[in-house]
Amino acid sequence: MTFLRNPADRARLTGHEARLACRRGEIVGSTAGLAHGYVQANLAVLPKDLATDFLLFAQRNPKPCPIIGVSAPGDRRIPELGEDLDIATDVSGYRVWRHGEMVEERLDVADLWRDDLVAFAIGCSFSFEAAMVEDGLPLRHVEMGVRVPMYRTTVPCRPAGPFAGPMVVSMRPLTPAQAIRAVQITSRFPAVHGAPVHLGLPEAIGIRDLGRPDYGDPVRVAPDEIPVFWACGVTPQSVIAASKPSFAITHAPGAMLVTDRRNSEFAVL
Amino acid sequence: MTFLRNPADRARLTGHEARLACRRGEIVGSTAGLAHGYVQANLAVLPKDLATDFLLFAQRNPKPCPIIGVSAPGDRRIPELGEDLDIATDVSGYRVWRHGEMVEERLDVADLWRDDLVAFAIGCSFSFEAAMVEDGLPLRHVEMGVRVPMYRTTVPCRPAGPFAGPMVVSMRPLTPAQAIRAVQITSRFPAVHGAPVHLGLPEAIGIRDLGRPDYGDPVRVAPDEIPVFWACGVTPQSVIAASKPSFAITHAPGAMLVTDRRNSEFAVL
Repeated sequence: MTFLRNPADRARLTGHEARLACRRGEIVGSTAGLAHGYVQANLAVLPKDLATDFLLFAQRNPKPCPIIGVSAPGDRRIPELGEDLDIATDVSGYRVWRHGEMVEERLDVADLWRDDLVAFAIGCSFSFEAAMVEDGLPLRHVEMGVRVPMYRTTVPCRPAGPFAGPMVVSMRPLTPAQAIRAVQITSRFPAVHGAPVHLGLPEAIGIRDLGRPDYGDPVRVAPDEIPVFWACGVTPQSVIAASKPSFAITHAPGAMLVTDRRNSEFAVL
Repeated sequence: MTFLRNPADRARLTGHEARLACRRGEIVGSTAGLAHGYVQANLAVLPKDLATDFLLFAQRNPKPCPIIGVSAPGDRRIPELGEDLDIATDVSGYRVWRHGEMVEERLDVADLWRDDLVAFAIGCSFSFEAAMVEDGLPLRHVEMGVRVPMYRTTVPCRPAGPFAGPMVVSMRPLTPAQAIRAVQITSRFPAVHGAPVHLGLPEAIGIRDLGRPDYGDPVRVAPDEIPVFWACGVTPQSVIAASKPSFAITHAPGAMLVTDRRNSEFAVL
């Protein structure tokens, strides 16, 4: 088995090639930097009796939970995201959950698949980050080689059935002029979290200490910068865990589903 | 002579009707709230030997100096802004400048008109404020019934010939979520100052005390709000005054040129 580790090689793959490499186990873990220009997605797999409530949750909370594809019950395909796409094998790391507890991490969930499972692909910040980078905006966590800092806020999601909980946000420090530009750029991509939900004043959304994120790693905020907050795909994961479904599968942190769709296709203008 | 003072009557006028009322002297001073939906403009009139440098200044500083119409030398018309439009009579208050000094305020400059004068109409914040209000965003200075606070910054304009100086900004306090929405809304209107140039951190652009604006009136900034700054049409006025041209005419503060163009026509999308 050959592992794909060279960043240039990883970036050069198409979405389909990246997915096949994940399927073959040649790519494990983080998909950051993989298949330049292709949309990556958060994954949530739930029993179909929860599907309606989860769809309703997404409809009511489109910024933290922008669904970009849903499988038919029992179906491991999501054709609108890729022709040759197998939900149960093509993600480079899965987490298996039972009754709200993460019970296992694995590279393949084919033998756990069931006829009643529905897969949800949820837009991911990699897409809007790519647009920011192309415009020359800095990403501090990328510069520092760490994970983006994420925080549980005091902003409640609008609940749906068992799905309820606070919005989780990711934070990127920017100068005010960069923050304004970032609002413009990310507003074009509502299907991948879209515009920021907050900036400056972290305490106004219940964040007491930027240096202690609830997920990911802390990053430096310079004196001439303000923290800019985007709704984060960890929100639905956290809400699913809190609802303690009998069974669920998600992607492992950073190990996204790589699709055949182009980031630019998701720009509304 | 009948003065038009009732706010509903003033709002109901078309741009053309408002201009005729100004011409007849029935409207004097501030044009705020006049001719709902119609673009109003800052006015700068300069001798034609300064026109090239002023156009160059505008081209280099489109956010503080977005030109929306220019007359031919000696011509008192700007047909693209209104069919029946007379620069020398249709503004509800003029300032006359000689060698950088304001020498006179008057309601008509027909007898001062010269064959070498060029009139520049410059986009005004009333247009983007209208779009903000339609979206339900608050305007503190309007709520308080005062003029918008404006500040000279330490951000230099890009100079052109004799025209040089700092950018002047207007400030509107908004919550972070409102500020993000305001960036989206005002980005649609680059011809009327467009997106904010700065937010939060007033000291980063040389503003030491928000409570002491250089022009206009101070407004309250609530603890859950941040100051949001837009490039301001006072910038070209201030730059013109500093250049001490032998002769110039501008609108008096708040007394704008009302045009036949609709605000919505200036939306780029």
